[in-house]
Amino acid sequence: MLGRENVVDAETALGMLLGNIRTDKPREAQRKIEDTLGMVSAHDIISMEDLPSFARSTVDGYAVRAEDTFGATETMPVYLNLFLEILMSRKADFLLPDDCASKIPTGGMLPENADAVVMFEHVQIVDKQMIEVLKPVAPGENVIQVGEDVKRGEVVIRKGQRLRPQDIGACAGIGVTEIAVYERPVVSIISTGDEIVPADIPPKAGQVRDINSYVISGMVSDCGGIPSKKGIFRDDYKNIRDAIETAMTDSEAIVISGGTSVGTKDMVARIINDIGSPGILFHGVSLKPGKPMIGGVMKGIPVFGLPGHPAAVSICFELFIRPVLYSLSGLKERWPQYSSKIVRARLSKNVASSQGREEHVRVMLEEREGELWAVPVLGKSGLITTLVKADGTMVIPLHINGIEAGELVDVRLF
Amino acid sequence: MLGRENVVDAETALGMLLGNIRTDKPREAQRKIEDTLGMVSAHDIISMEDLPSFARSTVDGYAVRAEDTFGATETMPVYLNLFLEILMSRKADFLLPDDCASKIPTGGMLPENADAVVMFEHVQIVDKQMIEVLKPVAPGENVIQVGEDVKRGEVVIRKGQRLRPQDIGACAGIGVTEIAVYERPVVSIISTGDEIVPADIPPKAGQVRDINSYVISGMVSDCGGIPSKKGIFRDDYKNIRDAIETAMTDSEAIVISGGTSVGTKDMVARIINDIGSPGILFHGVSLKPGKPMIGGVMKGIPVFGLPGHPAAVSICFELFIRPVLYSLSGLKERWPQYSSKIVRARLSKNVASSQGREEHVRVMLEEREGELWAVPVLGKSGLITTLVKADGTMVIPLHINGIEAGELVDVRLF
Repeated sequence: MLGRENVVDAETALGMLLGNIRTDKPREAQRKIEDTLGMVSAHDIISMEDLPSFARSTVDGYAVRAEDTFGATETMPVYLNLFLEILMSRKADFLLPDDCASKIPTGGMLPENADAVVMFEHVQIVDKQMIEVLKPVAPGENVIQVGEDVKRGEVVIRKGQRLRPQDIGACAGIGVTEIAVYERPVVSIISTGDEIVPADIPPKAGQVRDINSYVISGMVSDCGGIPSKKGIFRDDYKNIRDAIETAMTDSEAIVISGGTSVGTKDMVARIINDIGSPGILFHGVSLKPGKPMIGGVMKGIPVFGLPGHPAAVSICFELFIRPVLYSLSGLKERWPQYSSKIVRARLSKNVASSQGREEHVRVMLEEREGELWAVPVLGKSGLITTLVKADGTMVIPLHINGIEAGELVDVRLF
Repeated sequence: MLGRENVVDAETALGMLLGNIRTDKPREAQRKIEDTLGMVSAHDIISMEDLPSFARSTVDGYAVRAEDTFGATETMPVYLNLFLEILMSRKADFLLPDDCASKIPTGGMLPENADAVVMFEHVQIVDKQMIEVLKPVAPGENVIQVGEDVKRGEVVIRKGQRLRPQDIGACAGIGVTEIAVYERPVVSIISTGDEIVPADIPPKAGQVRDINSYVISGMVSDCGGIPSKKGIFRDDYKNIRDAIETAMTDSEAIVISGGTSVGTKDMVARIINDIGSPGILFHGVSLKPGKPMIGGVMKGIPVFGLPGHPAAVSICFELFIRPVLYSLSGLKERWPQYSSKIVRARLSKNVASSQGREEHVRVMLEEREGELWAVPVLGKSGLITTLVKADGTMVIPLHINGIEAGELVDVRLF
């Protein structure tokens, strides 16, 4: 068993987790596109058709052969004969003769031979049979070509992409109304700590209500996972080992919520090592709050032992559990590092930190004379209300002693 | 009827909408706290109890009377007699005598008379009856006081606050497991356009599949609303008027998706004015893409007539529909203006714009030598794939001619 002295920095800790989890086989599911928002595509989605399937006008005007308009000016307009009007949603089932124009609505289909559209604004109507064109159009002008949006055979959505509203719209546009996505990862939440009682049970003296399983559940949902609360378990080896082994059968990740005493943590570490290789990867991170965090992998399944303090839970989740869940989700996001909401603000007071640990400070945002200020929230990390009052957190990096009042900092919003 | 020349800037347009909608009475619902993530609290939530309900230790150590430790040093330690060990989750049902110490775990309850905890690290054990204290503690040190997290009678969650994981945790901590939230606003989506066919029907020549109702549904869900797709309606007065009037009976907002032709837009505007006051508020915004947007309010219910181009749909939604839905949700967010994900990037090429309109440019993000660049996505705003390829948008403000390559811009991520 690894001792408590096995403290690593946050980056190393995350690297160890990501290097040991099994990400080869997220489960796939077939879903209607309207039910896939925020999920991750399990395959490249390739179009079987051209979008649009016909050349469309982007304006209200007259479909023409561009070359017939060359040289047109306001003083020397080109005269074109009107030929059959094009109706919305109808096939333009004819060939446009030379020196002719067909009235066409926005979105209308260009007839054969026509290759551009002159906008109404650049046309003078002579009579029912003839118009004057006051400005030439280039071939292709005001037209969306066949396949200009999507070509048949083109990859529209890549495997591993999180589906946004426009991605679902693109699937609809090419007639793909059902797609394969990865199932959301199920995360088991095991609460330990003999002093913890369910939130709806009045605590006796010495007891406190369960807070952390609610915080963790919400964060799991927020990053696309499915929380599965397993309950509150007494601090003994067999009891907690059974809970972990049961969770391994029906979830992709396991979060164990402390257990504030040293004894419990060492026992949890022992159980993780006993269950499966590689077991505990780190026991302690150079991080505040969050130092007593345990990270391990058992037979490919990541397990996180979180400290009991709510502020530590929140930081450890952001730093370790969120990226691991993204990886388990099959996500190959282009900009995962920017997936948080970050704002720049000026720090309202000096904040000290110890070199050699990365410190996460809860801050409130305040607007003062049009400028945004980050005001540190005072209070012990065991207080849930410090997280409720805060709008986000700022980081004092590992090698820095502190940050002075007035400096600009990045605040990651909750 | 207001004419098409009634073009306003985006800020004015939003102000008109927010000033005319009815936000007095979002419907309330009683929900279990675990089902309220992302919803908005309908009342102040006031604690009926102190959290914690007893003074707790934040460390493993010895509960003491602080004054008994005053003057302790490594060379001149203070000697204290050991008195009854405090067990986790048990009531410390005794009075600590003078010059005594009780072993206490993290989270354990302080006995009466004790007011501080000495950490194990600052203690030397003499024998089974006695310890040496090597460092004094101040009163309250290493202790969370009764009510230090939440005091009885304190407001924990404010009315109008969006519920984050930690807010739900705080409710659990004070034993509030069911709360009143506002129902999510239902947004009806009415598709018009004779050329539009459902996504699962192969389009004939001249027809295209419905894309926009999927994009709009996804965006409604993303900002906490419930999309209600009403179907695709033929472009005639009675048909569309019936659809709008039906939607008014079961939704809090109505989005009408174009209808690319001028005729349809004018008809939709006429219907809105005919149904109810104040009717159309603006018809056209100095915005690109999105200029033909219609905004109105009928008997307190907002109605949006969106242009047919997907890129315009996306921009108009962000600028107008999202803030209106937030307002309809009862949200009084502290930092709504920062609710988007913004990153700073360097613009990869000159982008020109016309003064007098606010231009939203789709961009991809690229990392080049550690720096983030915003690369404009070329392509007509009618192409859904320009939105799929883009990571977000940047804005060229109303009064600016364009932005030069190399300048830093804010990119709002999708």
